Amino acid sequence: MAEEPEYLVIDLGGTRVRAALADRTLRISHRIEEATEVEGGPDGVIDQMTRMGRSLLDANRRLTRLAVSTPGPLNPRTGMVYSPPNLPGWGTLPLAARLEGMLGLPTDLINDANAACLGEFHAGSGRGHRNLVYLTISTGIGGGIIADGRLIEGSSGMAGELGHMTIDRHGPICNCGNVGCLEMLASGTSIARRFREGLASGGKSIVTEWVCDAPATARDVARAAEMGDPLASAVFTDAAEAIGTGVVNCIHIFNPDIVALGGGVTQAHGLFEIIHRVVEARAMAIPRQAVRVVHAELSGDQGLIGAAAAAREQEAKP
Amino acid sequence: MAEEPEYLVIDLGGTRVRAALADRTLRISHRIEEATEVEGGPDGVIDQMTRMGRSLLDANRRLTRLAVSTPGPLNPRTGMVYSPPNLPGWGTLPLAARLEGMLGLPTDLINDANAACLGEFHAGSGRGHRNLVYLTISTGIGGGIIADGRLIEGSSGMAGELGHMTIDRHGPICNCGNVGCLEMLASGTSIARRFREGLASGGKSIVTEWVCDAPATARDVARAAEMGDPLASAVFTDAAEAIGTGVVNCIHIFNPDIVALGGGVTQAHGLFEIIHRVVEARAMAIPRQAVRVVHAELSGDQGLIGAAAAAREQEAKP
Repeated sequence: MAEEPEYLVIDLGGTRVRAALADRTLRISHRIEEATEVEGGPDGVIDQMTRMGRSLLDANRRLTRLAVSTPGPLNPRTGMVYSPPNLPGWGTLPLAARLEGMLGLPTDLINDANAACLGEFHAGSGRGHRNLVYLTISTGIGGGIIADGRLIEGSSGMAGELGHMTIDRHGPICNCGNVGCLEMLASGTSIARRFREGLASGGKSIVTEWVCDAPATARDVARAAEMGDPLASAVFTDAAEAIGTGVVNCIHIFNPDIVALGGGVTQAHGLFEIIHRVVEARAMAIPRQAVRVVHAELSGDQGLIGAAAAAREQEAKP
Repeated sequence: MAEEPEYLVIDLGGTRVRAALADRTLRISHRIEEATEVEGGPDGVIDQMTRMGRSLLDANRRLTRLAVSTPGPLNPRTGMVYSPPNLPGWGTLPLAARLEGMLGLPTDLINDANAACLGEFHAGSGRGHRNLVYLTISTGIGGGIIADGRLIEGSSGMAGELGHMTIDRHGPICNCGNVGCLEMLASGTSIARRFREGLASGGKSIVTEWVCDAPATARDVARAAEMGDPLASAVFTDAAEAIGTGVVNCIHIFNPDIVALGGGVTQAHGLFEIIHRVVEARAMAIPRQAVRVVHAELSGDQGLIGAAAAAREQEAKP
């Protein structure tokens, strides 16, 4: 028999807010979803989450906690968010305390990439394993790490910024201030940027014909690469090799059972072939033989499941 | 009052073997030390460790475990070592089982860098903290990671190979098969190699005058850099910046309280100044404000203390 719902869970993104209920087995139910009312700023979005949360609370009076997957940076211990780039105009904000005041439930925040990692660990490709590295490659590159069954949080809850490891010390300066970060070489935004730079410096491509005046996206680049377009192929292959390099780093640093790759860019044709080739050629034998590099299995509920896992973990603390 | 010794601990290195007793508070006593009898191969060195161990066992009949810090790669769960580069001629070997047979104590193996990390965590710069990254920079570059008070071991006990993360994807091929590893840019061996390469391609330096026909060492390069020698300064500064890049990666990946740097290279004048400058310029604000990058405090007993910590942890397992 299904368990009673125990947690209210919210997955706050820059474009969508999802809310649902979850039980102690991390089963998700009663999903609702809206476009994020970003134009209202933090107050408007907090009101929106409150309204969505109340509509679920009304019918379920026995809920014990609220957990919210949120774009970082944030500190899960204090419940503060710090000017998240994916929620423009938000400053430093005690988001957990605000929601706790509105909804009357003890509230946990979790970084969205860490939530997705926990979801993938409990209900996706990480099931049955103890050591998982999760990378989400879309607009930016985020990450999460499970070592011996536990999420690595770090001193202030900021661990897992795998997109901001330098893999090219002579590479471009990243938005984060670091140099040659994986994200600067291989995120969707970066693939599109590098393609435009190639066009601007005279690179030959068919893509300009498709997209007219709109700037090419990473999806355009991947599609053109699949068709053999020379500039798109060069940009796409280089980005895929950069991801492979980041994956090898994770294999050497964590010796994981699974490296799971999620996010829009990982859907591109041919990407995994290149990543697997880099891993095969470069990773040390023992950790290479221990790992599988796979597509993330979840694509929708990972944030809600991860938030539920975070709530369950908090609840278990003495 | 001091506790009774509980563990026999051995720190096996390519040049020295140390053995001692340890109590449950990780206090080390009865240290003995010999040059490693490498010419005898694994059988000779196992005999040597057995002899040293017996001399300590005789007077201490209540010991419960043996723990050995050993050059990796090795699997702490199976007690196998796999052709360690620092013990030339050793193949794949059930070292824990062999020592257990000889000394009659349940035996744990731990990778030397992980042992040093555990030592530093319990008795050095990591005291009182929960999150420590340890890097040892000498002939090679090894590492260990403590997250929320626990050593990260990975799927087959190989986690923490921080020297083999790519920080220069267009850099030289490493002995491990990977590309542009931190170790290839900044270990003592690499500093000496890069200096020789600079000389061979016509770089100007005073160092040739000192060392006559012997090849320059990393120590020579650091000393010459301190005196303003142009080639030595360029090589040393670039290696230090590479270490700084690796440290920033560790700060972004682990959000640690402490990054502790040990090993001969870290004694070089001016090294920490460059590393601190790179961290200050490039690390993201929140994890940068949480971390201190410091010299490892222990320089001798870290392997023995770490082995004792590993024994204590094994003993506590159900």
